[in-house]
Amino acid sequence: MLGIEGERLGSIFGKMFRVTTFGESHNLGVGVVVEGTPAGIPLSVRDIQKELERRRPGRTVISSPRKELDRVEILSGVFEGKTIGTPIAMLIRNVDVNSRPYEAIKDRPRPGHADLTYFLKYGHVDWRGGGRASGRETVARVAAGAVAKKFLSEHGIEVLGHTVEAAGIKVEKEVGFEEIKKYSDKNSMRCADPEVARRMERAVLAVAKEGDSTGGIVEVRAIGVPPGLGDPIFDKLDAEIAHAMMSIGAIKAVEIGAGTKFARMRGSEANDPITIEGGKITISTNNSGGILGGISVGAPIIVRLTVKPTPSISLPQHTVNIRKMKETMIELKGRFDPNICPRVVPVAEAMLAIVLADHMLRSGKAKPDRVGG
Amino acid sequence: MLGIEGERLGSIFGKMFRVTTFGESHNLGVGVVVEGTPAGIPLSVRDIQKELERRRPGRTVISSPRKELDRVEILSGVFEGKTIGTPIAMLIRNVDVNSRPYEAIKDRPRPGHADLTYFLKYGHVDWRGGGRASGRETVARVAAGAVAKKFLSEHGIEVLGHTVEAAGIKVEKEVGFEEIKKYSDKNSMRCADPEVARRMERAVLAVAKEGDSTGGIVEVRAIGVPPGLGDPIFDKLDAEIAHAMMSIGAIKAVEIGAGTKFARMRGSEANDPITIEGGKITISTNNSGGILGGISVGAPIIVRLTVKPTPSISLPQHTVNIRKMKETMIELKGRFDPNICPRVVPVAEAMLAIVLADHMLRSGKAKPDRVGG
Amino acid sequence: MLGIEGERLGSIFGKMFRVTTFGESHNLGVGVVVEGTPAGIPLSVRDIQKELERRRPGRTVISSPRKELDRVEILSGVFEGKTIGTPIAMLIRNVDVNSRPYEAIKDRPRPGHADLTYFLKYGHVDWRGGGRASGRETVARVAAGAVAKKFLSEHGIEVLGHTVEAAGIKVEKEVGFEEIKKYSDKNSMRCADPEVARRMERAVLAVAKEGDSTGGIVEVRAIGVPPGLGDPIFDKLDAEIAHAMMSIGAIKAVEIGAGTKFARMRGSEANDPITIEGGKITISTNNSGGILGGISVGAPIIVRLTVKPTPSISLPQHTVNIRKMKETMIELKGRFDPNICPRVVPVAEAMLAIVLADHMLRSGKAKPDRVGG
Amino acid sequence: MLGIEGERLGSIFGKMFRVTTFGESHNLGVGVVVEGTPAGIPLSVRDIQKELERRRPGRTVISSPRKELDRVEILSGVFEGKTIGTPIAMLIRNVDVNSRPYEAIKDRPRPGHADLTYFLKYGHVDWRGGGRASGRETVARVAAGAVAKKFLSEHGIEVLGHTVEAAGIKVEKEVGFEEIKKYSDKNSMRCADPEVARRMERAVLAVAKEGDSTGGIVEVRAIGVPPGLGDPIFDKLDAEIAHAMMSIGAIKAVEIGAGTKFARMRGSEANDPITIEGGKITISTNNSGGILGGISVGAPIIVRLTVKPTPSISLPQHTVNIRKMKETMIELKGRFDPNICPRVVPVAEAMLAIVLADHMLRSGKAKPDRVGG
Repeated sequence: MLGIEGERLGSIFGKMFRVTTFGESHNLGVGVVVEGTPAGIPLSVRDIQKELERRRPGRTVISSPRKELDRVEILSGVFEGKTIGTPIAMLIRNVDVNSRPYEAIKDRPRPGHADLTYFLKYGHVDWRGGGRASGRETVARVAAGAVAKKFLSEHGIEVLGHTVEAAGIKVEKEVGFEEIKKYSDKNSMRCADPEVARRMERAVLAVAKEGDSTGGIVEVRAIGVPPGLGDPIFDKLDAEIAHAMMSIGAIKAVEIGAGTKFARMRGSEANDPITIEGGKITISTNNSGGILGGISVGAPIIVRLTVKPTPSISLPQHTVNIRKMKETMIELKGRFDPNICPRVVPVAEAMLAIVLADHMLRSGKAKPDRVGG
Repeated sequence: MLGIEGERLGSIFGKMFRVTTFGESHNLGVGVVVEGTPAGIPLSVRDIQKELERRRPGRTVISSPRKELDRVEILSGVFEGKTIGTPIAMLIRNVDVNSRPYEAIKDRPRPGHADLTYFLKYGHVDWRGGGRASGRETVARVAAGAVAKKFLSEHGIEVLGHTVEAAGIKVEKEVGFEEIKKYSDKNSMRCADPEVARRMERAVLAVAKEGDSTGGIVEVRAIGVPPGLGDPIFDKLDAEIAHAMMSIGAIKAVEIGAGTKFARMRGSEANDPITIEGGKITISTNNSGGILGGISVGAPIIVRLTVKPTPSISLPQHTVNIRKMKETMIELKGRFDPNICPRVVPVAEAMLAIVLADHMLRSGKAKPDRVGG
Repeated sequence: MLGIEGERLGSIFGKMFRVTTFGESHNLGVGVVVEGTPAGIPLSVRDIQKELERRRPGRTVISSPRKELDRVEILSGVFEGKTIGTPIAMLIRNVDVNSRPYEAIKDRPRPGHADLTYFLKYGHVDWRGGGRASGRETVARVAAGAVAKKFLSEHGIEVLGHTVEAAGIKVEKEVGFEEIKKYSDKNSMRCADPEVARRMERAVLAVAKEGDSTGGIVEVRAIGVPPGLGDPIFDKLDAEIAHAMMSIGAIKAVEIGAGTKFARMRGSEANDPITIEGGKITISTNNSGGILGGISVGAPIIVRLTVKPTPSISLPQHTVNIRKMKETMIELKGRFDPNICPRVVPVAEAMLAIVLADHMLRSGKAKPDRVGG
Repeated sequence: MLGIEGERLGSIFGKMFRVTTFGESHNLGVGVVVEGTPAGIPLSVRDIQKELERRRPGRTVISSPRKELDRVEILSGVFEGKTIGTPIAMLIRNVDVNSRPYEAIKDRPRPGHADLTYFLKYGHVDWRGGGRASGRETVARVAAGAVAKKFLSEHGIEVLGHTVEAAGIKVEKEVGFEEIKKYSDKNSMRCADPEVARRMERAVLAVAKEGDSTGGIVEVRAIGVPPGLGDPIFDKLDAEIAHAMMSIGAIKAVEIGAGTKFARMRGSEANDPITIEGGKITISTNNSGGILGGISVGAPIIVRLTVKPTPSISLPQHTVNIRKMKETMIELKGRFDPNICPRVVPVAEAMLAIVLADHMLRSGKAKPDRVGG
């Protein structure tokens, strides 16, 4: 049987904007139920589809060729092109579920993958491609994020991400939100600097040719966020953002604002001076990444994520045959994403959008019962 | 009145090991209710007190002189020196609640503090020392963490933290768990390398003399953690650790295992080879920080936290008078922690212990109903 | 637009066996995601369909003629006829969504319906048939309940309900679980006493002929329930059962065991004597309905529900035109369920099964990670 | 040791008005943390004390002579006589913890008590008086309820309960809210009809003289409740009220409005006609008990609770010696409440107040961040 016994719980996120995901990578499909969206928000299949396209593989030289048509069907919560306040259920059916490539590795957990821990926890390896642990699960997150983005856009909030480093190639210059918007979706690396993007792609492909993979750093920003989002103590806005981001498989570090740079700063540089702009109290620099004491200050939210190299590589690796309990080697066949950063971007955007949507409702900044026109 | 209107919610953390904190920095005291601890675990006031001592200020040249006696009173859940399975309530009464030092800054939010966002969210500044936003709140976390540690120790799990970087001074050599245990509590910086500790202290004090503060990096490790802790999708072990850690005021970055280093690694270096040791399947390196696919692998859990420089400095800073709505300067009087790393360590240990205790119960590795002898 | 703005939240139930419902009565369909089912449990479309059939209208003289084919599609969580431990998503598409009958009552809330409160809360009446407030929503509950029943059957637990009173006609004699099983599904009233069933049907139809409706009492029992289900204080088993049952629209009273009869008992009659049967400690009578101190005792769980008369009747009733804000009359056209008891039975069974499944997992009596053969 | 191993969880109730209880009947004391109370609400020790007095035993001929001074200490959340929006922690220390009376029954669970199920679940009987299962735990509920009542009173909502039946003696005439207020606290039975109260007392004492106990019915009402409280599907207002009420140990049935009477009504009598009063849409009768479709309609909330006879009686009863596993008899010494109705009243009021406070916040009818004057 499909070896993902007991992969249970963990599928619900959020308090007032609640996301419930379902589905497997090698079964009928994946989907999500989004509860808490106010009524009257224009929402079409196209709004969702557009975001799904951005994470879909097989589109560039950088991403694996798995064919995923990723057609979303809206099952509930929308009527005559508008949300009606009820849970929005969406389904994306699987198309390419050929699991033969996985047969070979059935008894040998792939290093860097969830295979090993799923085996240790549930007593098996899901040799069919990770089941719920598969990157395929993020389709549901992106669909939910698309709803969150529409909701946020009604309040003037925009969420956008881009790759700031990959395979050792960095974006050095400061890029503004408009640049990110203009360029990041135009290249295979989803990088806001076209020239750097080309170098990133070259570096990524060079390593790929050796059968190896590379990591990088993705940055996600939100603008138009009002002050006052976030609750005290354990429910701080940055705490929930860190939770949401670290729940993405490939992420191993989350930084808010200046992040790790704070370690070498002095208080006098680190503290953002408080000032008045256009009659509003705000900060004149943004080391804090828009969050102080766990609550948004009104400046852009800035989050940086470290993306580990794709664990799937074709070089031979040390592993263990879990049936025979003996050490062995594994060589993965087929082609994999040599660098996952560009595909992490829309997923990270989705998670930030979901957290912000939740806090817009929790803080009362958005009326949950708003009646749509 | 004490200006912390509406600082509500956010005070409960955990699913099966649930922590509810209460109390204010300038009122009667702070406390916590810990629900879910199995019965029969030896627990004394001394166990709690020992941990409280480690975070208490006024003990070294590095920490602020505020006198906090921090005597804990156990109100429930313990009988004849053992837990009885019921909620464990603990109270630590405040002693030094002199709020005069804060009077001066009443209308001027301190840069880098929660003052500004609390004002923007709740319409006031808690000029009495941060109320729930105060570092004082972490006393409750440490008390709860002490209970979690005792519970974990029953299962052979140990949690320990140390300062690996402060004021630009780094611990370069690899330090083992035993070294951390032996040295970190012996010096003012809580650093596992005594020689580096001395240099850290010097560097911290040099900057302090200029009226400025410094940041650093704290590492927390857990050994003896069984494989299989963590749930799929949104409830991954590392996601909840990131949540817990980022909910500590001073933390601006959370890294798991190799963390940000993954950005420049290749898959072939990043992937921890899978091997067999003592008849157990495990990993031969630990870049993953003991967590794969959100589930513990059985190797040590390794978390690194970036601690921002103490926002309270005596240098003049730009701020705004929120009553007059005009820009002004602020100069903080009195003495503050010039570097908060050594005091973050016990708090970070507490949060990791709480998350692990929760997952020991959620995963069924620890029987919630165990009958004590 | 479909007037159900802000009908949000409230769609998730359970802690370890979690049910998320979605869908509307006059849109594409209704569905549910069931999270927490252990893996390896045989589950087929037929298992679900069988239960849906039992609540489907248009099957007897007692139920409304609305055509609902209620074909369930399993979207996830099942593979090769077995659960795989992942969330089980199910969709039931609507067929008969003709909303014309409702047009007439657009501005006039129907007495006894949610129309009025939905208007007062959300500023509108869902004149299309109640949206989420519609009885149609219970299809999702029954589908989830079918999964819970299969899970419980693996542990020897059976849940069964029947009508014990309707239109003033009562089942006087004691009926055993086997009788209920044998007869209750064989008649239009779902009554375990065939002779009484006939009299109930006559009485119900007589009142129906006058354009009026009747109420009754439904009893639900669970046998094979192990001792020890239920948590202390606020999470008592009977408290959560009461919550689950009272969340069914038509229910206005919930009784456990002897229920209201306790009011006139003496302690000496009310207390169930404790005895030993087959080497097991148990109770020799069951006034407690199988629950003491909020925890199951191992005896059958017995719950009685008072079902209010169907609010939809064809007699003229006093209401208000909410646009013109003036009192008026309303006469509902079409045919409605003259007595809803027989259709409440499968819904009540589903809710009891869901609560018991949740507690089987929460109490550790059922292993969440059980690997299916 | 104190035998209440693993009596864990279950101690937190509510979503935005969250109550966490702690403490044991035969240990230091009991307490509660109330989170979510808006700031600026006048709250004094006297407000809490007043309610505790109403539930305190040893005050009338009807209640057990156990001396509980029940002095509350407010540990946090209040400053200068006003709530400050932070969690309100309260502690009531135990005074009379003489456990000798219980020694005798150590190995013999008392029929009708939680003793048996706690033994079956946790492997022991708490022979020291029920620990968390003890009626003592309700002190914490009443303290939390007192806070909820103060909060509700700020919004013109009043909650009041009374005994409508005891030992077979019923209040026959309709009593209004003012009568309840005027008379119910004036007599030992907490009955709104003084003459009936006397007959109730006589009947209760007559049975008590025989060493037996009696049950009854308690009614709780809330006036001034705005329309719109309650969420759809599983979070209906009446569902959460039923949950809260059934979590009180002695309660075995919960009725909303006409409750069980609905079983014999016709739709034409049951449906409350909709009308206009003072420019407001409302209902002209109140069979619904103020709740339609799970949402408040603006009419008084009416809840009826069946209270089972006090299980502690001095007549000999059949039980089992759990050590020797053999049937035996038990005779309880000492004096117990012959009828618990009058003491259930303040507890039931507290639970209703807590649920309403939670929904006032969840519905946005009460601003959580309101700044106190």
